[in-house]
Amino acid sequence: MTEPLRIAIAGLGTVGAGTLRVLQENKELIAARCGRDVVVTAVSMRDVSKKRDANLDRIRVESDARQLADAADVDLVVEVIGGDSGVAKELVERALANGKHVVTANKALIAKHGAALAALAEKHHAVLAFEAAVAGGIPIIGALRTGLAGNRISRVAGILNGTCNYILTTMQRERLDFAQVLTDAQKLGYAEADPSFDVDGIDTAHKLAVLAALSFGTAPDFDAVQVEGIRRVSLVDIDYAASFGYRIKLLGIATMEHGKLLQRVHPCLVPMDAPLALIDGPFNAVQVEGDAVGRVVFEGRGAGAGPTGSAVVADIMAIARGDSYPAFTVATKNLTRAQPAPMAAHAGCYYLRLTLKDEPGVLAEFTRVFAKHGVSVHSITQRAVAADASAQVIVITHETNEAAMMHAAEDIAALPVSMASPVVLRIES
Amino acid sequence: MTEPLRIAIAGLGTVGAGTLRVLQENKELIAARCGRDVVVTAVSMRDVSKKRDANLDRIRVESDARQLADAADVDLVVEVIGGDSGVAKELVERALANGKHVVTANKALIAKHGAALAALAEKHHAVLAFEAAVAGGIPIIGALRTGLAGNRISRVAGILNGTCNYILTTMQRERLDFAQVLTDAQKLGYAEADPSFDVDGIDTAHKLAVLAALSFGTAPDFDAVQVEGIRRVSLVDIDYAASFGYRIKLLGIATMEHGKLLQRVHPCLVPMDAPLALIDGPFNAVQVEGDAVGRVVFEGRGAGAGPTGSAVVADIMAIARGDSYPAFTVATKNLTRAQPAPMAAHAGCYYLRLTLKDEPGVLAEFTRVFAKHGVSVHSITQRAVAADASAQVIVITHETNEAAMMHAAEDIAALPVSMASPVVLRIES
Repeated sequence: MTEPLRIAIAGLGTVGAGTLRVLQENKELIAARCGRDVVVTAVSMRDVSKKRDANLDRIRVESDARQLADAADVDLVVEVIGGDSGVAKELVERALANGKHVVTANKALIAKHGAALAALAEKHHAVLAFEAAVAGGIPIIGALRTGLAGNRISRVAGILNGTCNYILTTMQRERLDFAQVLTDAQKLGYAEADPSFDVDGIDTAHKLAVLAALSFGTAPDFDAVQVEGIRRVSLVDIDYAASFGYRIKLLGIATMEHGKLLQRVHPCLVPMDAPLALIDGPFNAVQVEGDAVGRVVFEGRGAGAGPTGSAVVADIMAIARGDSYPAFTVATKNLTRAQPAPMAAHAGCYYLRLTLKDEPGVLAEFTRVFAKHGVSVHSITQRAVAADASAQVIVITHETNEAAMMHAAEDIAALPVSMASPVVLRIES
Repeated sequence: MTEPLRIAIAGLGTVGAGTLRVLQENKELIAARCGRDVVVTAVSMRDVSKKRDANLDRIRVESDARQLADAADVDLVVEVIGGDSGVAKELVERALANGKHVVTANKALIAKHGAALAALAEKHHAVLAFEAAVAGGIPIIGALRTGLAGNRISRVAGILNGTCNYILTTMQRERLDFAQVLTDAQKLGYAEADPSFDVDGIDTAHKLAVLAALSFGTAPDFDAVQVEGIRRVSLVDIDYAASFGYRIKLLGIATMEHGKLLQRVHPCLVPMDAPLALIDGPFNAVQVEGDAVGRVVFEGRGAGAGPTGSAVVADIMAIARGDSYPAFTVATKNLTRAQPAPMAAHAGCYYLRLTLKDEPGVLAEFTRVFAKHGVSVHSITQRAVAADASAQVIVITHETNEAAMMHAAEDIAALPVSMASPVVLRIES
């Protein structure tokens, strides 16, 4: 049997402790499947005195994670500190420069510095792996890298943030507003004290940038992701959407068309019978469309000690078995830098909720605006008249260009009969 | 760049032609992702004169597939002939003995001879790969081998035969009987002229045996699979199941408990909101439960030129990149031979449809039988009284032992009030 693979875990929070537990509890099974032992020789934690729910027998504890990058008894560093700069970045760079393999769950780091880190790994013949960075326990990175590798991929889309999906699902089930559900989720520990990373779509955008890079053979380009979060999703729209056969989900969607890459994160109406509509609570799902395979969907828990630990350990095991591959499947010199497609060039169907005065001639006024901008309407439904004589009108369009849609919405907002800004949501299948 | 990897494809039917097409159409992308070219040097087909929808420029054509195993210009043989004996088996054995890698879509061969072939591959330092043997384009073999490898798996279950799923879905949607849908499916080419392999569950059992081997580190044991097909599924039961919130699906399910392996294939009632209930038409899905990851579900097309070709090409690419691994993840000497659990030891909930005389005292009679065998009843519903005064009674049980359930069903069948054999179906979530 080959020598043991010696692991250091930098950061002993939820994911670090989860990884350690999986490596300890399934030690024999892992050794059998790798053909060698995998042993944790060191961990780091900022506050060494803090009590942890972890078995640290015969494991060295460092207070400075960067020490692990230089340690002679470490072949592979697991980075689960987080953040796209500071200690995490320094540690990963130093470990790779020292020829140590790096397994990370850090989506921000990979989304922002993935290409540079991949080049560093190549230079020093180390593996940089990040299955745990996207969609927790779902082995989507491996699927894109190997199982679907023969496909020309046209689209990758997913529910990539469990907190947002939990909030949207709970709003619908419990009939509560966003603010109320967020407060509850924070109390229950499902959402952070500062929830902006999750609810503003940043976390989803990080993950999407990584998925897009692997799907299209491009360098990750986080800055080009168009991002809109879920703060403005209202229970009213969730209900109207449901009445038309849709659920509202925060999706990350990347498409490659004519060599241009469109990456976008925003709330979407998804038809009730589409796979992504049915993903509830903290679950994640990723849908990939390839020229040979057609549509494949992967579903599982997107976060937590066990699922994310499972993904970290999968990467460790592949390295233990000697798998060696470029971080983004193709050598970094062959990664293309795709030209970003503008959001304005997107074409799709739209849901609009208009708040209009309930008086004769209103219909003619706003349909004239649609006609002017070439927006083709599929259905117009008046849903309710309020005490203030305002009517809620729901419009579903045929496929329409985004720029035309936004201009039409602006013009409608400016109509005298318009009593509130139109709500515009995109429909995705 | 490394030398090209030279491929021979044995069999140019749907999957062989699909594989060739993916390799040709995505040639550059595949070379970039593998770091080397992948070229098809030879193919074989029984009837060389038969016209094929395939580009065979600069490809040698053999009429005897076994020639490919000895060819000097072949590094890897793709076996897509099918069958668990004869040419397919000889070819695979000879290719492996010659140190050539083998990629196969042949589930029967792997289910029946997988361990022996894996040992042969190991002996000659060749890779034996079979992503395409299970669930078409869904990269489930790779996921079990790598992405979920750190998990102790407790259960793997799936919809593994597209023909059966198409038939069951169509029965429900079109309100037709099994025989009618089967005839239509045969006319449309969705079912074989001799459909027994599919509808009697054999194909599902082959695939389940392969999944179980990978999930539990055991040698594939096809003979131990308990198999029941869908011929006896009636529209009546599909409708009653729906009225209780279930869909009827043919599942393959493998569970490991106390070191005993239960592999079973049979129609099941699946709760409408469970992921597997929503898999319609020709789609396949696999659900894996691991100790760290929890539940993950994979969904995609289970057959066809593109999806199966995608899986074959994924295996080819992994080999082209130099991945080298035991066929069943662990070395064959470490594969255990799990003791099969008897079906009688299974415990679960059951659906029963009883056809009874509609007369006073009937309820007391059959509930006495349940009590005698310790079957705990969740609900009893009388659904319809026919012209012959027979009543349809639907019973849903709490968790019950299979042996007790079957004894109770026998006793009920023997009651004077019983007008037809009870229908007994298992409920799975």
